[in-house]
Parts: sequence; C-alpha cells; structure tokens
Amino acid sequence: MPDAKNILFIMSDQLRWDYLSCYGHPHLHTPNIDRLAERGVRFDRAYVQSPICGPARASVLTGRYLSSNGASTNFAPLRVDELNIGDYLNPLGMRTVLTGKTHMVPYIKDLDRLGISAEQRKYIAEGGFEAEFRDDGLHPSAERSKNHHYNVWLREQGYEGDNPWNTHANSSVDDAGNIYDGWFLEGAKFPANIKEEHSETPYTVMRAMEFMKEASASQSAEPWCLHLSLIKPHWPIIAPAPYNDMYSEKDFIAVNKSEAEKENAHPVFEAFMGHKDSTTYADDTIREHALPAYMGLIKQIDDQMGKLFAFMEEQGLMDNTMIVFTSDHGDYFGDHHLGEKDFFHDCSAKVPLIIYDPSDAANATRGTVEARPVELIDLIPTFVDIAAGKAVASDKNIRLDGMSLLPLIHNQDVKWKDFAVCEIDFADRRGPRAMGLSSHESWSVMLADEHYKYIAFHNLRPMLFDLKNDPMELTDLGEHPDFADIRNQYKDKLLSWFISGRWRTTMDDSDLERVGLGVNREKKGVIIGYWDEADLPAEVQEHRKLN
Amino acid sequence: MPDAKNILFIMSDQLRWDYLSCYGHPHLHTPNIDRLAERGVRFDRAYVQSPICGPARASVLTGRYLSSNGASTNFAPLRVDELNIGDYLNPLGMRTVLTGKTHMVPYIKDLDRLGISAEQRKYIAEGGFEAEFRDDGLHPSAERSKNHHYNVWLREQGYEGDNPWNTHANSSVDDAGNIYDGWFLEGAKFPANIKEEHSETPYTVMRAMEFMKEASASQSAEPWCLHLSLIKPHWPIIAPAPYNDMYSEKDFIAVNKSEAEKENAHPVFEAFMGHKDSTTYADDTIREHALPAYMGLIKQIDDQMGKLFAFMEEQGLMDNTMIVFTSDHGDYFGDHHLGEKDFFHDCSAKVPLIIYDPSDAANATRGTVEARPVELIDLIPTFVDIAAGKAVASDKNIRLDGMSLLPLIHNQDVKWKDFAVCEIDFADRRGPRAMGLSSHESWSVMLADEHYKYIAFHNLRPMLFDLKNDPMELTDLGEHPDFADIRNQYKDKLLSWFISGRWRTTMDDSDLERVGLGVNREKKGVIIGYWDEADLPAEVQEHRKLN
Repeated sequence: MPDAKNILFIMSDQLRWDYLSCYGHPHLHTPNIDRLAERGVRFDRAYVQSPICGPARASVLTGRYLSSNGASTNFAPLRVDELNIGDYLNPLGMRTVLTGKTHMVPYIKDLDRLGISAEQRKYIAEGGFEAEFRDDGLHPSAERSKNHHYNVWLREQGYEGDNPWNTHANSSVDDAGNIYDGWFLEGAKFPANIKEEHSETPYTVMRAMEFMKEASASQSAEPWCLHLSLIKPHWPIIAPAPYNDMYSEKDFIAVNKSEAEKENAHPVFEAFMGHKDSTTYADDTIREHALPAYMGLIKQIDDQMGKLFAFMEEQGLMDNTMIVFTSDHGDYFGDHHLGEKDFFHDCSAKVPLIIYDPSDAANATRGTVEARPVELIDLIPTFVDIAAGKAVASDKNIRLDGMSLLPLIHNQDVKWKDFAVCEIDFADRRGPRAMGLSSHESWSVMLADEHYKYIAFHNLRPMLFDLKNDPMELTDLGEHPDFADIRNQYKDKLLSWFISGRWRTTMDDSDLERVGLGVNREKKGVIIGYWDEADLPAEVQEHRKLN
Repeated sequence: MPDAKNILFIMSDQLRWDYLSCYGHPHLHTPNIDRLAERGVRFDRAYVQSPICGPARASVLTGRYLSSNGASTNFAPLRVDELNIGDYLNPLGMRTVLTGKTHMVPYIKDLDRLGISAEQRKYIAEGGFEAEFRDDGLHPSAERSKNHHYNVWLREQGYEGDNPWNTHANSSVDDAGNIYDGWFLEGAKFPANIKEEHSETPYTVMRAMEFMKEASASQSAEPWCLHLSLIKPHWPIIAPAPYNDMYSEKDFIAVNKSEAEKENAHPVFEAFMGHKDSTTYADDTIREHALPAYMGLIKQIDDQMGKLFAFMEEQGLMDNTMIVFTSDHGDYFGDHHLGEKDFFHDCSAKVPLIIYDPSDAANATRGTVEARPVELIDLIPTFVDIAAGKAVASDKNIRLDGMSLLPLIHNQDVKWKDFAVCEIDFADRRGPRAMGLSSHESWSVMLADEHYKYIAFHNLRPMLFDLKNDPMELTDLGEHPDFADIRNQYKDKLLSWFISGRWRTTMDDSDLERVGLGVNREKKGVIIGYWDEADLPAEVQEHRKLN
C-alpha cells in the first residue's frame, strides 16, 4: 500500500490502558480494537503529558509539554500564540476536522488585548479544527445546552425537553420507570434512558462517517485529519441497554491497592486519597454499580469501531488512512485508594495507543508491540510527517516537544527518547491545597522509563516505583535508603529535561546560524574582540574588500 | 516626603558591578552615583537573569525568567503574547517612555499569523514604550542608520556623512589625525572623533531631561516611568576627550584569573575560553588599550548623572521620583580567561543596583547595603507597586516571576527569596556548539545565594563556587568529593525552582478558586464521585433546592 494520505485520530476519554483485551483485560473483549492492533503497532508504554482531560488534550493538540504550553489545569485557556494542530497541518494542505471533544478554551483576555480578528478568534477558539461537531460532554445546564447539535438531533428523534443529553443520554431508568440523573452514581447500573443507537458514542461515530463520506464525494479530495474524539467512557457513567448489563463483579480486574500504601504515603498522594471521588470508590458497592457501566461503555465503543472500520473498508479508506486509537488518560476506580484520574500511577497516566499505517513501510511492524516509552505529544510530529509526505517535524518545528513515531512504525533505526514525562498542576485541587501549598508550589513531574517511575515535587520528597519488580506500583521507594543512587540518577535526568532549549520558541536552528553561529554578524560590521582588520577571519576580510 | 509618583529607570550597558567607587573600585571615583547610593539602598547581590544584552533586557522588561519568556538569545523575538512594561504600568495610569536601548525584537511571524492590528504591532515592537528616542547602539551600516535620530542630530551639529554615529561618536583619532574605526580595539586609547558634549551618553541624557521638562510643563501631569537606557560603556569602546585619557594601568583592578582554572575546566567554560573575545583579552596589551576607555566611559556616565540629578533637584523631581540605577550585565575583560560577558561569574552576571525612593517610608534604609539576593525581574513588580500606590504586584500578576523590592526598601518584614537565578542559552555560541551540543542541549542555569553559586547544564557535570570562602570564584568545586552533599542540596533547590506554577500563565488564584477549589463546579451541576443528592455538600444541596 502507498503512504497514508488521511489520518483518523480516535481518542476515547478516561479509558484505562488495561481495559482492552489486546492490552490484557481477561473478560472485556474488544475484538475490533484488537484487530486494529493486529494490523498496526500497539504501544505498551504510551504516557499522556497530564492525566487530566483539559491539559492532556492541550498537550496532545499543541505537541507540547504542560510546562511548555502552560494550559495546565482543566479550563486553563491556551495562550493565544500557541500553535495548534491546524497551524501545523493546514499549511501542508491537510484539513483538520473535529467530531467530539477538545476541552479547548481560548484566552479571551489576550484575544481582546491584542485586537485579534474575528476569523482568527474562531480558528483559535476551535483549536485549529473545522468543528464539524463539537461536544465536550459537559452539559448539565439545560439553558446553556438547549441548542447543542446533539440535543437538537435528539429532539428530532423524538426525545423531549431542553436537554435530552442529560435527561435521556446521561440519565438511567430502572424497571419501575424511576429516572436517575447520571451525575450521581446510584443509577449507574440501570440502562440509559435512550435507545442504544441514539446514545452519544454511536452519534459521534455517525458524524465522523458522514464527514468521511462527504470528503470522499467532494471534488477536491483534499487530505484530512479527522479527530474522532469520543466522550465515553468518561462520566456521566451511564450505558444504554444492552451494554449496561453485560458485566458483573466476576468480570472485574481485582482492585489494586494495599494497606501498606497508606502508611507513610507521600503527603500529596495522601491528600488525593482524601478527595471525595477517592473515598467514594473505596466503597466496593459503588465499584459494583459503576464498573459494569464503564465496561459496557467500552464494549459499545469497540462495537462502534467495528462498524466504523467496516465502513472505511467499503469506502476504500483503509488503504490510504492512518488510524490512531488512544485515550486522554485512565481512571483509578479505587486502585491505590484513589478515584477518578489526576495522579501518576499507570492506571491514570498510561494509555492505550494503537497506530495502523497502511503504508508498505509499516509491514514489518504489523501486529507487534512497541515497548519503548512514547508520549502523546509525539502524535502531532507524526501527523506532520504524514501530511508532508516526509520527515520534517523534528527539524523545522521548534515548538514541537515530541518526536515523530513514524521511524518506530517503519522499523527504522532511530535514537529514541529514554523516558516519558507527565506533569500535574494540582493548584485547583482541594486536598493538596488544604496542606497549605501555594498555587506556585502545586506542581509535580513524573519521569518513566522501562525500569523506574520517578515523581518529583516542589520542595517535597520524591516518589519512586520500580516498574520492573513492582509493576503494580504498590511500593513507593521514595525514601528507601537502598535507592538513594537511583533517585539521584533520575533527579539528574529530570533536571536535564528541564534545562533545555525548548524554552526558546521564536528562533530555529537557521535563525541561530544567522545571528550567532555564522560570520553574518561580522560581515554586517558588528565586530567584537578584534584588534584590527587583519585580525578578522579571512572570509570577513574578503567580504569587507568587496563592499 | 510622600510616596514616589514617577520612576526614572536608568540602565547602563555592560557596566561591571565593581567598577563604581560605591561598590569598591579603588581608583574609578563615581561620586554622583555614590551619592545616589547614600540616599537610597545599594543592593550587593543583584543578578541579571541572563548576562547577555537581549535576553537580560527581555527578562527585565517582562519581569520573567528566560525559561518563562523564551527570548533567550540576542535577537530572539519576544513572544507576541508576553506582557511588557507598558502592559503593566499603562493601565495603572503611568506612561512608559524610552530614551535609549531596549534590544527588543517583535516576532513578526506571529504578528502576521494572528492578524494583529498596526497600532498594536507598533506598541509591541517598542516593548510597550513611547519611544521618545530609541537607540540600540548597533549602527555599523551607514545605509540603514542614515535617518537615525542621533545621526540626524549629529549632522545638525556639523558632523558630516551618512553615519556620524560610527565615523565620529564611535571612531577615534590620534594626534596625527589618523581615524580608527571603533569596531576594532587598536584605536581604543585615542579620543573619540567628536566633542564630548555631542557623544552618545550626554545626548541620551539630554533627551531624558527634555522629556522630563516637557512632562512637568504639560497640563496632564500624568505619572511616568522613564527608561533612560544608556549604550555605554558597551562596545564600541571609544571615549571622548578628556575621558579617554584619565586612567592607566596603575588604576586597574588586577585581572582575576589563575592557571588552575584552566586545568580540568568545565567543558562549556573551556569552550567559552576559546572564543575570539576571550583570547583577545588574554593579551595584556589589549587590556591596557581598552580598559582606560571603558573606565573613562563610566566616569563620563557618572558626570552625566551629576548633571541629571542636579537638574532633577531644580525641577523638584527628586521629591516625587524613584530613581533606579543598574546595568544589564558586566564584562570579563580577561578575568577567568574570558572576554565580553556571556558566562556566570560575578563580573558578568552580578550588576550594580541602587534604588532611591523619596518616600518617608524609605528613610530607615537610606545609605544602607542590602545583602540579600535580588533579581532584575524584581523591578517590574516594584514599579507596579509604585504605579498602583500599594502592594499589588505579587497577588495579581500571575506572569510576573519577580517580587517587589519595596518591602526591602521600606525595611518591612517579608519572607524574601533564598537565591537568585540566571540562565544562559548558548545555542548561538560557536565554542560550545563545536563540542557537538545540539541547540536543545545548549542551556544552563545558575543559582546563587549568600554562600554558594551552583551552575547546572544539560547532561554535563555542574560547576560550584563557594562565594563565602572563594569570593573571586577561582576554584570550581563541581567535582570536589567533599562538596557532594552541597551539590545535591543545590540540585534540589534548582529542581524545585523548575517544578513550579510559573508555567501556568492564563489562570490566576481567583480562576483556580472558580474552576476547582470552590464548589462552583458542583453548583453548576458537574458532580463527580457522589452517590446521590444527599451525598452532596450542604451548600450545594441548598443551592440545588433554590434552583
């Protein structure tokens, strides 16, 4: 097959890496996603750059670490001059199209201050996407969500009310007809108050298929990158029948926690244990209510992927489209005494990542597992290389912190990164702030390679996990005397990661050559430290004679 | 006296901290600057955030570290959305006016991409100043500099040619009438080819006085911050008579270097030793030519300060104007086997800083020496507090990395910073790049407190100086086995400095309260980890009943 022309970039929300059968879930069978992995590469150490929706996505879509782009909490606006996926791909002739979630918030204060045009503002507000259909999946307010595309469509299908997103798709109903608001967990085991085909995942996938059909039919046949960005299995955790009822306790992976974790827990970890979502999921009854719905929502996604891939086969798109399947972070579900995501254990910070590349160049890696650490910021550089039809991302784009994955997918020799980095800004989290940390002190950084995971804080002791000997991450070696040397090694790695030219965002290598490395400066007459003309480099003397 | 209304912010260029008599120079007497120190506070450990013109000034004028604002090399454009001195002071009713140098380069690529208006572009290009008179002091090209204000004025005074800046102000002439181009050092001991009163320093000071006179005469009497930013004693090192001939070898501070420094020198330090400016100043003959001119230029600045301060007394401005006197970095002049600036020893990275505050609140500190470490990024927060008439800088301006100096000047109890930080991006320097370092690896960070100076590099060993026991910085303890614990302590401090909320540039503390710390989220209906309504916090239940 020739090289990919289009990119289908599928992202689930809050999908744990280990809740797919190709990643080893023993009871949750996901044959369609598994089949994609058989045809592509399955990455075994893919880390997000922050295990929280907003910052995770801001990093993916800018190709930059949290400490580079600064959009570090949920609802933190992205700086006005950050480059987005459209800024990278559109100039290379590739459309960037969205169906689903981005969580992108523009920085209105600076858009106003800088007097930025209406057209440019819209582009920035949508993160560089043509928003075919945007849905951030947060619509508790009937008033504000009345005219949302999905609500309009649901009303066309016969659902009543201002906000059927909430009252139907994200509410459940028991046998007696009692309705449960999906924002609470008590109703999680009952089926959604909606027909399966009208629920959020099939709707979002349908919109993606509609776009692909239109794009294929259009005269221009312009290449596209479609971000099919699903809201589920993120909360509200409500699955439509039959998916609500497919799994029960016997299908669960056992909760991964120990009492020893609570003893001498790192103070920030301990503060997270006190959060409401953590104490909630400490209750097995609640896990028994919520996990079947979570697993059902994943099963539904897999079925929808089956439909989508079959549609793409029919349309001939499997031959010219790179398909990426991943998630923005995982979910603790009671592991390590935590709920939700927001901390650094693998169930939260590591995600599934599968990449199918139709190109013959990828044949050697089909069905293989890539064990080297990769980061989701590596996706934009990969897409840039696809859009450009050659390797350009790393050389030309000084603001990209990631590396193109194509050399791995094409089984080429490449000096790869030694570790993945993930950052958490917890300045908006109540637990650690109650410890008395200022917003400036509320930041942490994880570095993970194939052996260790090192987590550093501002003026607090680090955490350390030996991933090789303790893959369940139950023993924090952050104070263990035998590991002082290891901690020191990883501290050095982390400090070197920070001491980096990535802060230089307005000068590329050719600019550096022009202003300082070449003799351009001397030729222009800025001559520093020379005694007389004869003391100048020969080429500058020659140049001065000619001028 | 009441609190200051105006600010006169004087910056010399390349003025070493120890080349003023109030800082201990035994032969170079600077009574006017000394007198300012007697009336104000003299800071003994003031560090620039980079010892290179462009990045030093970008840090001063944005109030942010190099790794925050990214304008890290000479001619690196400032990011479009960085806030400048005008963005901070103008909204508080204070004009920001420039006479002299800023080195500011706008990022045209992003101004174009974002479609920013012509008016806003001009504001950004001048760094938020009304450029009463801008002179970056780099005018080797006659063609490009023909219409520069200073050249126009020089021609009005009778100097001929397209570029009298170069051919008169910055050239010298010997007794026989031979002209020497000031870009070369051979002519440094001869007088400038210009009358003293027409040379660059008096002209720039005159422009500043003209502005003050106009501002005093105007009806509005709007407060102002005037940046009187002198080019000298920066190269071209040419002093007008009589200043060229006031000093000779007997007046020099001895060169500060040892052969031991060359043995086992840190590889980056060694690479800098190989630069042309370093090998040039290794030659004592060249020092003997250049240092008298350098010292003369400083003496001329001091005399001009005398005139300026006398003028301000006459105008009543000493009663309502804060005066800051500082420099953007120093000069090695052969110390430590280096020329120019660009590295971390005190002669390069530490600068004079004197602040006179007319307010009665400052009476207790007049004539005192402040030994705690301060950073030039502390100036903008200080100015914000003056402009606001109260302490607001640290609370409200999330992008300011510095701290207001007013509590120190007003002798108030304050938890002050423990150290100063300075960074160098050497990706545009030939020596270290010739070692094979990539542009990403060419970054370094210094942390200095009252005892130690620790310098860290990307994947290279650190440097360490014991400032208390080796104030001349002749012994690098970066590999000394006895100092392993000290190095480890400072490595921790530096890593904590990096792990910080300063990367979060679009959310202030009230935004964090709104999105995460308060119960606003739950009140809006985004409810995470609750079983049912009864499980909600009381205030949210109450709120839901009312809605």
